[in-house]
Order: sequence, then structure tokens, then C-alpha cells
Amino acid sequence: MAPPSAIDIVAVSDTEAITIPDPTIDGIASRRLKAGKLVAGTASATNSALFKSPFTGKPKAKRWDHYITVEGKARHPSALKGAAEHLKKPGLISLGGGLPLAENFPIEEISIKVPTAPHFSEKDARESGKILTAGKYDASEGSSVYDLAIALNYAQGTGSAQMIRFITEHTELVCNPAYADWGCVLTVGSTSSLDKGLRTFCERGDVVLAEEYTYSSAVESAAALGVNFIPIKMDSEGLLPEEMDDILNTWDEKSRGARKPHVLYTVPTGQNPTGATQSATRRKAIYKVAQKHDIYIFEDEPYFFLQMQPYTGPDSPSAPPPASNEAFLKTLVPTYLSLDVDGRVMRMDSFSKVIAPGTRVGWVTASEQIIERIVRANESSVQNPSGLSQIVLFKLLDEHWGHAGYFQWLINLRMEYTRRRDTLLDACEKFLPKDLVSWNPPAAGMFLWMKVDYHKHPAASRKTILEIEDEIYLAAVEEGVLVAKGSWFIAQRGDFVPEELFFRATFAAESQDKMTHAIERFGAAVRKTFGPE
Amino acid sequence: MAPPSAIDIVAVSDTEAITIPDPTIDGIASRRLKAGKLVAGTASATNSALFKSPFTGKPKAKRWDHYITVEGKARHPSALKGAAEHLKKPGLISLGGGLPLAENFPIEEISIKVPTAPHFSEKDARESGKILTAGKYDASEGSSVYDLAIALNYAQGTGSAQMIRFITEHTELVCNPAYADWGCVLTVGSTSSLDKGLRTFCERGDVVLAEEYTYSSAVESAAALGVNFIPIKMDSEGLLPEEMDDILNTWDEKSRGARKPHVLYTVPTGQNPTGATQSATRRKAIYKVAQKHDIYIFEDEPYFFLQMQPYTGPDSPSAPPPASNEAFLKTLVPTYLSLDVDGRVMRMDSFSKVIAPGTRVGWVTASEQIIERIVRANESSVQNPSGLSQIVLFKLLDEHWGHAGYFQWLINLRMEYTRRRDTLLDACEKFLPKDLVSWNPPAAGMFLWMKVDYHKHPAASRKTILEIEDEIYLAAVEEGVLVAKGSWFIAQRGDFVPEELFFRATFAAESQDKMTHAIERFGAAVRKTFGPE
Repeated sequence: MAPPSAIDIVAVSDTEAITIPDPTIDGIASRRLKAGKLVAGTASATNSALFKSPFTGKPKAKRWDHYITVEGKARHPSALKGAAEHLKKPGLISLGGGLPLAENFPIEEISIKVPTAPHFSEKDARESGKILTAGKYDASEGSSVYDLAIALNYAQGTGSAQMIRFITEHTELVCNPAYADWGCVLTVGSTSSLDKGLRTFCERGDVVLAEEYTYSSAVESAAALGVNFIPIKMDSEGLLPEEMDDILNTWDEKSRGARKPHVLYTVPTGQNPTGATQSATRRKAIYKVAQKHDIYIFEDEPYFFLQMQPYTGPDSPSAPPPASNEAFLKTLVPTYLSLDVDGRVMRMDSFSKVIAPGTRVGWVTASEQIIERIVRANESSVQNPSGLSQIVLFKLLDEHWGHAGYFQWLINLRMEYTRRRDTLLDACEKFLPKDLVSWNPPAAGMFLWMKVDYHKHPAASRKTILEIEDEIYLAAVEEGVLVAKGSWFIAQRGDFVPEELFFRATFAAESQDKMTHAIERFGAAVRKTFGPE
Repeated sequence: MAPPSAIDIVAVSDTEAITIPDPTIDGIASRRLKAGKLVAGTASATNSALFKSPFTGKPKAKRWDHYITVEGKARHPSALKGAAEHLKKPGLISLGGGLPLAENFPIEEISIKVPTAPHFSEKDARESGKILTAGKYDASEGSSVYDLAIALNYAQGTGSAQMIRFITEHTELVCNPAYADWGCVLTVGSTSSLDKGLRTFCERGDVVLAEEYTYSSAVESAAALGVNFIPIKMDSEGLLPEEMDDILNTWDEKSRGARKPHVLYTVPTGQNPTGATQSATRRKAIYKVAQKHDIYIFEDEPYFFLQMQPYTGPDSPSAPPPASNEAFLKTLVPTYLSLDVDGRVMRMDSFSKVIAPGTRVGWVTASEQIIERIVRANESSVQNPSGLSQIVLFKLLDEHWGHAGYFQWLINLRMEYTRRRDTLLDACEKFLPKDLVSWNPPAAGMFLWMKVDYHKHPAASRKTILEIEDEIYLAAVEEGVLVAKGSWFIAQRGDFVPEELFFRATFAAESQDKMTHAIERFGAAVRKTFGPE
């Protein structure tokens, strides 16, 4: 595959599947007003249907019974949860559940100091940040709809109603799913979402389609479940629909040793490790192939909001930020959810890259049938994300920023990542030997994917690609820079030998100054390795 | 089985397996002093061996390769994590990982308001609680060993070094494991610990031994994995070792349809739902049966620190609290870990019942082999508990209370639960028809297990136990009280019919006033149900 090029940014309006009513921030505000105050106490049942647009005329999702695993089907609601129906009886005293009393939680109050739009810089936040405080009984005392008594107690496998409301609205604003009966469930992050997705859809011995270079943890998680990845060739826009179609058309169970794949795992935006972003046109083409072969899609989108401004080159002025939240949303490439008329997409979102990984909060959006399976899986494993994380996110995102402020934050992050990428690319222009190393400006994500022309290595005729890769890798460490080997991300396990040589460098983790030094060192390492023996 | 009686409290010194050196709070303090300041930045590797007593002369744990599942064996460390070795090189700049920069986390500071020993009451905490604050760069600025920059970023599958240190020391103080190479790993709570334990030890089609009445979520979690529970008869001290031995001696694979069990799941203290607590003698007898049949033990101990003062009866003065932390620790029944010379116990602890469920933090203690399997399982699912939860717990437990203050809190909780249990028992004495309902004072936990003599029901000859159970249950709801049906907790799924009739009532969830009303109502419901037809 070639390194990624800048994608063709297509406005949301380009997507046929997106129909009226177009959700808006104002529309959501008036919907909330009409619904009245959210009343959701300890361990309240909740679901996205309570917070979505009313009837939309969209189609209903298909059923996936034919793909759900033995484990996925075997999950039933708890017998004790059935008793909850009686709790509505006025005056009833419950000695039924085992929920401890909030008065025995030794945390009375929690406060966080956070920035206020548009003053998002760390310096601003530190010096004049706003203090948000949650008390133990804010909800019963009427000063908030969420409090520590609720957040610190047990909760449902969906996550809290307070956060389900926010992420449902957010998902509608961003993705506006193309079918009617979608929903969201909170998870403890996308790694857990994928684990639950795999256990719901894949039996041991199954295979999953994926980009030929992919997130190595996904490969490893699947491998432990006895599920292998089948690589699909990529170009600068990510996986190639024709290649996917070809693999499926010519699938032979016997020679492949596995039934025909029924799941595609894809990272459509700022893909890890290649940085490739699928254009709207590409997504539609892939979705069509998925429909043709009845493929269910795991859409893993941690980097969706790390879409950046176009790269203008080392000496050009950078593009100004989007003028408004609406303009910002229009710059974003349409999601699979927004194309998904069948309900064949399980989208995985996460706060890890846009707020902080340590929150361990993400969410899944899918049809109600699949959401219910994930809720059941949560109930018998993680239960739901940390209540402390949920109330901190709620205070920040819902009560303080609101949807509009959160989009402002995301625009701010977009510009920050644009600057970081541009610094790295400028250093590449300056310090890398262009006859040996090639790359394309990534349009999203945290990673630059660099192709090294190993043919020009003096020992190319007698050394393997992996040997040359290791040589460059160690030379780079010797020079004082760590980059990731491309071979670590090969989707296909076993003795597979890649045809090309790549390295992955991140622009997310180091100061701009250090990044420049790092690339200078990498350039020196490549030159040394390719010098006369 | 009979309802539980008060257990014979045996001092720790009774346990042969516990040998020198006896860990003490002072000993741990001086160990910390000797070790110097904990240096553990973002995503630091850690393990319990760094924080345990040095060489103890204890035996090493047995290996469990013969029991570890295909899934359990298939988990390998991530290729990317291997690159971490190079990070030690001075001056190296890493573009290798994908860890976001802390400057882009929009939370500058977090504060919690908490009680200070011995003023633990909610009123004290609210009016004069101490404010604990964690900033983003406290560790690099030298004011703490943990900060938001670390807590909010990605971390290892073990949990943070800061919390691993605390729980390792705590576990040593409380359990003093009887073998050398034990360790701890943080989990997102005991439901997740059990899920990971089951996936590590049990293949689909396996069976697990358990108390005949047990935690229904454990049964449901196992059932989804194709693992069924085999019930062991109980008495007032929990499961009967002779019954366990008998089941194993007479196991017939063909008629049972499963290989001989190799795992016991037990809740030894304040068992849910029966409230039974295994005495030290009982634990030793069960451990011996486990050794005889090479059974691996899942020790699920959410209620371990809800061991209460002896019940002195309705008109007697209550027993005074333990005079010191040392005296308190001596009142606690010895854990399986403290008996476990073979390393055949995976102990599950949780902060849910002793701090708050919403932290979603628990931990597993087991031999290093098993800990490493759980760490790998964390890496490809939950990663590790919320960093916000971890830093809040660290501030409270380690920096503010310390081990001594935490034990003071646990003594406070012990007295609180003693009062609550006593209120419920007093109400039972007063309001329940003793010719129909019998119970024994639970020595630990959150639950009272009430046996109803269904033989005396007017329709006993033509109604099933389950029909009578439902009749009482609905009559109680009608009177305005919800209790849990005993049949919900039957370990054996399917058409199993119990021989006796139980209800479970919690004393953890309602005010003392409401509990008394609730029991009065339950008494009325039983009387009505058993009245003339």
C-alpha cells in the first residue's frame, strides 16, 4: 500500500442516507426543555430511546441472530433486576437489593478545575479555570440532576442516564444514524467495546476482515479468542473495497480453514498505524460490499475528532479554524453510522483521545438488539464505567461546556493536532532523505506512516525486509529516537512477510521541539543504515 | 441447610500457615522509608514484588498450566510493550507510542472532601471534612508521587504503581499469604475479576463447585460461558467440606456430562445470600479437600470487612469496638490466602462495599503466574481501572488515612453494620411469627437469611415450594416491602426444586427506621399467607 494522502473532504450533505430531521444543538435544547428535568436516581434504568429525536421515518435495523455467538445469546437479564418493577409501588421499602447506603461513602464532594470556552489553553485553565463541584446529595437537594450518592453507588450496565443522555445527543448531532432503532451504551473504553463485540459476533475459529496494517491490540485481543484477522490491501485512503469484495467472492472454506468472514473491523479515520482516512466515497463503496456479502462492521473511531486542517506545506500560512460549530461538523467525513440504513454497524467511540485515556469511558452505538447484548455483557463483567469518571465527564461536558462548548473544545484540539502534525511534517521535509523515505500528510489521527525504500539498502539482495527494518530501528534507537516498526501492525499473524517497509511516528506525545530533533535523528539513522557497508 | 449462626471467631494466631515475619503497619512504614520515594510516571511498569516483604522462607506457588484454558494461554504481551526497554536510554525521544500529552487533558485539578479519623460520620465529613487535591503535575513538581498527568493517561494492565503499592501492603497486613510469590492486580471490580478468572480456568462445558445458594450474578456470568455450578450442601457455617469431598470422590464424568470439577467458587464471609461465614476450622477443612482433589479456589470476599461484633440480643448492651487496629485484625476470620501454602487461591477483593461501588475498583491476589494471566486479560479488555478512581482512592487511602486510618474506617464501618444488623434482628424478634420464620444472626455481610416453614402453609400439600414462595413474596409487596426470593440464588440452574423456603433481607440499604417497618410488614405478609384459606 501507499502512505495516505490528504483525503477528499466531503460535506455531510453529500451523504444520501442522511435525511431530515437534521439534529441541531438548539433542537436538543428545546427537546430537553420539553422533557422536563431528568429524574434518574441510584441504579436507574435508562436507554437512548428516551433521549433521541422522536419518530423519524427511518427504517428499522435488521436482526443479527444469525451471527450472534453461543456466548452472546446465553446472556439473560438478572433475576434480581426483574424485581425492580415493584420498586415503583408508592411507599414500598426495599430490603431486596444489596445497594449500600450513600451515607457510608466517605467522599462528600468532588471538584474539578477545568477550562472554559474559548480559553482552552493549559495556562488559562490553570490560572483562571472554573471549579465544578458535585456534592453527595445535589440531585435530591435539587441543584443538579446527578450527584455522588448516585455516581458512587451501583448502576445499570448501560451507564448512568445522565451520561447516556449526553452521548446519545452527541452521537445524533455528529452521526445522525440512518436507521430508527439505534442506541448507545457506555463502556470502559474501546478495547473493552471491541472485546465485547468480538465475543458477541465471533466464535473461536472465525476470521475477521481488517486493514492489512492495523491496531496491534485488536489483533492480539482477537487472537486470544481464537479469531484471526484477514488482511485487506490498502491504498492512501485505507482499505480497498474491490479487494474486500474479491476476498469474499473467492472465499473457500476448505483452503482458508474458516467459514466466510461476516465481520469487518475497520478504523476509518486516521487509521492506526497508517494514518489513512477513508473518504466519503470510499466508505460508501465499502458499505456496499458489506451489504452485498452481509458483513457486519465494527467501526473503531478513537481518532474521529482528530481530523485536522489540510496540510498547506512548510512555507504556507495554515488554514484558519472552522468558523462555527456547524462549519466544523461539515468538515468531518461522514461516519459509517450515518450511512448505515441496515443497522449493520457497531461504532466504537472513546473519550481517550479527546478528553483523557484515564477516564476509561467510551461508548458503543448500534441497533437496539446489539446494544442489549452489550449491556448484558457489561452486567456480568465490568458492570459500567467508574461513577467518578462519569460524574466528572458529566460536570464538564453536560453542565459546563454543553454540546456547543464541547464542539469548541474539539475544534481547539483539531487546531492543536494540526500544529503538531505540521511540525512533524516540516521536520520530515527538512531532515529526511527523500530518495529513501516517503510519506503523505495524514488528514487525521496521531500518526505519520513513513515508507522506506528498502531496495536501495546496500544489502537488499541478501537481507530480508524484517532484518533491514530491525537494523534501521536499532540505528534510530542508537541515534536517540524510538519509532514503531511497521511489522508490528501486520494484521496477519504467523510467518507472513511484508512486501514493503514502514515505520510509524506519532506527533501526539512529544513537545514540538523534541519532535523536530527526533525526526532529525531518524533521518540520520536511515542515512547511516543505507550508507556504504 | 440451616440459616447461619454466629461463627467461632478465631484469632489469626490460630492459623498454622501464618509464619514470621508478621507484617505490621510500622514495618511497612520503615520499608517505604528505606525504599525511598516512589518514582512511577506515566504508564510505568509495576508489580507487587516491589512492595512486599523481602524473602520470607515461604514455599513457592504451584504451577497451574494443567488448568489454564486455551484462551488463558493464548494471551501474549503486546509487541509494542516490548519496545519499552529502549525508553530507559538517556535522552531518547519516543515517537513510538500513542500516548497523548497531558497538556491536552482539560482537567487541571481534582479535589475531594473526605472525613478524617476518628470523625467518620457523614455530618462531620460534611461540616469539617478535609479537602484533598491532586494537580496535574504534582509528581514532576515533587508534591506527591501521583498526579493527574499520570492518572489521566494510559496505564499498564496491573493498575498504577501507586495503588498496587497500597493494596499489596494492605493485603500483606490482612492476609499475610502463606507462600512467597504472590501478587496483586487491580481490576474494575469483582464481577470483572470473576469473569477473568472463569475465562482463565474454565472451558465451555466445565463445571464449578459452589455453595448451594450463591451470588446469582456469578451463576449468570458462568452460564454465559457455558460453565455450570455444582451445588454443595451448606450448614450455618457455609459449605460442608464432607459434601464437597463426596461429590469429588464419586464424580462420574459420563453421568454428570462434564469432567471432574477443578474450581471451587466460594464466598467465605457473610455469604450472599445466606449470610453464612466459614469459621477458621471450616476453612482449613475445605482447603484440605481442595488439596486432596487439586481444586483451585476462587475466594470472593466483598464482605470480608463487614464482619460484625457478636450479636448480644435485643436487650443486652452491645459489644464495644475493637480497642486497636491490631485487636481489630485479630477479630477477623483468617482468609484462604493466609492458609494457602500451594498458591491455589485467587482472592477477589473490592472497594465496593467498604468505600463505594461506583469507584469500580477491586483487585485480585494470586500467584504470579495467575496474576500475569489476569494482567494480559486486562490489556485486551478493560486495560485498567479509571485513573480518576485510582487517584481519588490513593489520595484518600494512602496519603490521607494511611493503613492505620483505613483500618479505623473499617472498624467504624464494622460498628455501623453491627448497629444496622442489630436493628433488623431486634425487629425480627419483635414482629416475625417465630413458629413460621427462623433465622440466625449473621456474623458478617449485608444479609439476613430467613427460613419459612412452608410445611405449615394451609395449602402445603397441594402447592409447590416455589408457588408458596411466590405467594409470600407478592403478599409482602402488597404489604409494602420487597425482599429477595431464596430461589433466585439457587446455584443449580434448570428445573431444580429446592427443599426449603428462604427469603433474603438486606440491612445495608435502608434507614434503621424503615427497616423496622419493613420487617413488621414482612411479618404481616407471612401471617396472612399462612392464615386460614
